[in-house]
This record gives sequence, C-alpha cells and structure tokens, in this order.
Amino acid sequence: MQIYQTYLEQINTYIKENRFSGAPVELYAPIDYTMDMGGKRVRPVLALMACELFNGDLQKALPVATALEVFHNFTLVHDDIMDKAPLRRGQPTVHVKWNPDTAILAGDLMMIKAVELFSTLDGTVLKKCLPLFMKTAAQVCEGQQLDMNFEQQEQVTIADYLHMIELKTAVLLAASLKLGSYIANAAEEDAQHLYEFGKHIGIAFQLQDDILDVYGDSIEFGKQPGGDIISNKKTFLLIKALELTKGNTQEELNQWVHKKNFNEEEKVTAVKAIYDRVHVRGLAEEQMNFHKQKAFEHLQRVNAPESHKTTFTAFASFLQQRAS
Amino acid sequence: MQIYQTYLEQINTYIKENRFSGAPVELYAPIDYTMDMGGKRVRPVLALMACELFNGDLQKALPVATALEVFHNFTLVHDDIMDKAPLRRGQPTVHVKWNPDTAILAGDLMMIKAVELFSTLDGTVLKKCLPLFMKTAAQVCEGQQLDMNFEQQEQVTIADYLHMIELKTAVLLAASLKLGSYIANAAEEDAQHLYEFGKHIGIAFQLQDDILDVYGDSIEFGKQPGGDIISNKKTFLLIKALELTKGNTQEELNQWVHKKNFNEEEKVTAVKAIYDRVHVRGLAEEQMNFHKQKAFEHLQRVNAPESHKTTFTAFASFLQQRAS
Repeated sequence: MQIYQTYLEQINTYIKENRFSGAPVELYAPIDYTMDMGGKRVRPVLALMACELFNGDLQKALPVATALEVFHNFTLVHDDIMDKAPLRRGQPTVHVKWNPDTAILAGDLMMIKAVELFSTLDGTVLKKCLPLFMKTAAQVCEGQQLDMNFEQQEQVTIADYLHMIELKTAVLLAASLKLGSYIANAAEEDAQHLYEFGKHIGIAFQLQDDILDVYGDSIEFGKQPGGDIISNKKTFLLIKALELTKGNTQEELNQWVHKKNFNEEEKVTAVKAIYDRVHVRGLAEEQMNFHKQKAFEHLQRVNAPESHKTTFTAFASFLQQRAS
Repeated sequence: MQIYQTYLEQINTYIKENRFSGAPVELYAPIDYTMDMGGKRVRPVLALMACELFNGDLQKALPVATALEVFHNFTLVHDDIMDKAPLRRGQPTVHVKWNPDTAILAGDLMMIKAVELFSTLDGTVLKKCLPLFMKTAAQVCEGQQLDMNFEQQEQVTIADYLHMIELKTAVLLAASLKLGSYIANAAEEDAQHLYEFGKHIGIAFQLQDDILDVYGDSIEFGKQPGGDIISNKKTFLLIKALELTKGNTQEELNQWVHKKNFNEEEKVTAVKAIYDRVHVRGLAEEQMNFHKQKAFEHLQRVNAPESHKTTFTAFASFLQQRAS
C-alpha cells in the first residue's frame, strides 16, 4: 500500500525530528525507547489519512498524530507492568529495562506529553479535539480494566467481550480518524461516519486477531500459535465455544480451561478440535464480516470523493493482509 | 481564615455535585474515594483566589480548580504505589483497598479526568491554560523521579534538593495561581508574579515541613516525630548537616544513616543533637525566610488593589500556622 508508506514516512520523520528530551534522563529515555520500537503506527496514519481526505493541512495534524502514538505506547507501558510482560516487539519492556516504579512514572509522563502535543492546535480546533481525546483515553482505561476483570470472571458473554474490545482497541482507531477530520474542519456528520468506520474496522481487526491466534500461520503471524488457548484468554472463540458446547464436550473444554499442568501442544490440539466441532471459527468470521460491512456502510456515507475514499478501503485490506 | 473557608466550601460543594461515575465501578470508585478523603484543597483554593483577585468568574474556575485536586490525588495514588504506603490521611491507600494494577489504572483515569475538566474553558483560555498545566504535570513527575533517585544517591547537594522540591511541590501551587489568573484574563506579567509567589511559598512550605518533622509538636503536626530522621530522608537538614559536619561528628552522623538495626528514639535524639551542633535548624529557617521574602516581593509587584492582596498574605500565614 504505497500511500500508507508515504504517511508512515512523514510520521517517522516527524518523530525523529521531535525527540522527547528532559531530565532526569531515566524518565524521558523510555519515551523515545518505546517510540523507536517502531510498529505500524496505525493510529497516526489514520489521523493523517482523515485529515487529507478533507483537504486539511497535514502539518497541523502531525503533532496530534504523534500524540496518538505516544498515548498508545503509554497504555502499552502500563499494561505491560500489569501483565508482567518481559518483552514488547522483541525488546525488553520498560519495567524490565528500567524498573516498575520508573515505568509507572514514565508512562504518566507519556500520557502528559501526548496531551501537551494537542496544545499546538488553534483554540477552536483544540476545544473540539481535546474532549474527544480525553473521552477516548478514559474508554481505553475502562477497556483495560474490563479485560483484567474477565480473567477472574467465570461468566463472560459475547456482548461483554465485544464491548470490551470496542473500548480497549476500537475507539482509539475511531478517534484517530475523527481527530484528523476535526483538524481539517470536516463537518461533524462526516467526522462521525469516519469514526464509526474506524470503530467497526477496529472490532473486525481484533476478531481477526482472535481467529489468527488459533488458525493463523504462526510464522507469518509472529506469535506463539494457540497462545490464547494456552492462557485461557477469553476470546470470541472461547466464549462462543463455552456457550455452544453441551454435556461431555463442555465438560472436556472446562477441564482443559481449569487444568494446571498440561502439555501445551496437546491442549491447543484438543481445544481446537472442540472449536471445530461447534464451528466457532465460522461464527467469528461472520461477526468479523458483519463489522467490516458496517464499517464500509459508514465509509460510503462520508461526503467525500469516492476516488479519495479508496485509501480507506485499501487500508482495511492492508490491516487484514497481515496473515490470513 | 474566613475567606479560605468560603472558597473551600465552594470547592467542596462543586466536588460533591460533580461525582465521577462510570463503569467498571472499581476504576471510577477510587476517584471519589480519594476526593472524599478531604484535605485542605490548597491548589483549588489558590486557583479561586487568583481568579477573584482579577475579578474573574469563579464558576469558570471551579472545574479547573477541581482538576487541580484530581491531578494532585492522581500523583498521590501513583506515589503511594511506589512508596508501598499503606495509609493516606488515615485511610487505606488505593493500591491496598483495591490492588496495585487497579491503582495504576485508576490513577491514569484520574489524570485523564483532570485534563478533561479543562475542556470546559473557552478556546482562547484553554489554549493558554492547557500547555501550562501539562508542563507543570511533567515537572511534578520529574520531581518525583528525582526524589526517588535521591534515596539511592550518596551525594545530594542543597541545590539538587531545592530543585527537586520546586518540581515536586512548588510548581503545582504556582500553576494553580497562574491558571486562576488566566481564567480571569489577567495580564501575563501579573499572572507570572503570582506564579512566582506560589512557587516561593511552596518551597518555604516544604522547608517548614522538614523543620517541623524534627522540631515540631508531634501531636499538632500529626506525624511520627523524627520520621524523616528514622528513614534517612534527604531533607534540607540532613543534607546541610552532612555538608557542615567534619571529623568524628560526620562519622557519627554517617554511622546513624547506615545503621540497619537501631532504637528509633535513640537515633532521633542523636541525630537531632548533631543537627543542633551545626545549627542546621537556623540555616533551614533562613532559607525558608528567604523564599517567603521572595514570595512577598512578587506579590507586591502584582498589579491589583493592595486590600485584595491581603488574602494572599493571610494564606501564607495560614499555611505556616499548622504547627510552629
């Protein structure tokens, strides 16, 4: 996707030219450390795409686009502390490379620096962008808390799950698009349709992630195959399977979920077999396609030249290409 | 101080009428929990005082005043995790009452909610207030990191220490005054003088805290007498004493600092005796009075009726009254 590459380069250049320096160094160094880990920069690219769709000035969007990446990294730094994750994108996490206290504080600083970047906006645009960003930020925290709660909770419904991934993942993608639209002074209605496009693409993207974790090509996907099964992560697949299985099959699934000592490969194979018996993959794909459909309906209703909107369709396919 | 009481009631009414509700409840409950712990609400009161000095609309200042308290509480929630503090104002800290993960996330949410309250400002005022608030927030984090570093650091100078307390404590008091001034559309020069007043009062206030910890009436002061001595906290007194003592006296002081097993009362008495020998109390009071003097010089230069400025002089005495 040529256009994605162009936006990505703009973002990366801006990030490289606007380092986060300050003292004490151990508080500021983690910001650039996480920013330099790279990644797809999906949120900044979405903000730039939306801004350009409405003929906005990309120079004005770049600080906010960067803020979205800094904010996203902040959530990862704090999530990694909670998850006791040793690695992120193949490198030591901040709480491992430094220490948990510094990781809490460096995360706080990243959140602060993200908001600070919004100060570059004009008063009227700022007045529209700031409440949207803060509301979204709160939702991301809510999503993370729900995700943690689900680990302890016996009963989680598909509705609970979809609500959680909407908050934890989808609204930030959606807000990235809406913020880019606001910076270009787009009409509220158009900005909102683009928001809904992003939200549904985000949900579809997470559902795909759930499917790929079990059925994807592990080499291309870059994660441990069946990792979600091994850790009993309450994904769409597991929740649906617990809902659909009955009698012996349900008992077998529950036994695997509660087993403390097991051979990982054996567990993945067994649970996958149960998933296949109740056809949860197809149901997940159905749900995913429903949200993709919804996304495209909203995109269609955005008042902008069709030829420009193809970037967004291409973007959706690009996200999906990762490994299927 | 009658006027303080009036502002305090306005703040407390506003806080009571604007609860932080949301789901999941364990993420939102800590916000009101910490807000309901009470306290002097120094930062909100300062914002209202400054706003009124320049004939501003207190209704516009109330959300920002509340934001300052929410932000301050956010820093306490995260600091308490780092310090492993079990109690705050006599009640269980958030990470004890809930758990550390929720305390990290609830703290994040408090920071977010604090910024969100700024969205109530008009675009032009917001454009002035937001960068000041975010810069101050970053400085508070820097101060906390420095404070943690000092615990591990052998050599800390008086200049290092004064810089740390300026960041950790003083700039937020200063910014509270400047934000209140901005909301009242005060001239930049006046807002800046009030900022400097707050900064120097804040430094003086922290120095007084150091003195009171050793020499204060422990019942009135409400803290363990000599707590700083017991924990080897690098206060003005200890740093100065390490600087001034020589030979046997310095060796004795160093022995007390490095001793692992000791009788607390004995340590306090011995260290206090060394402090007295090198007269660090007088030097700390000198430094404190220097900053009070500086504060009043800046207050004098604020272009506002002298009769209105007495509130600020009264406030400074009020802060100092606590226990002397």
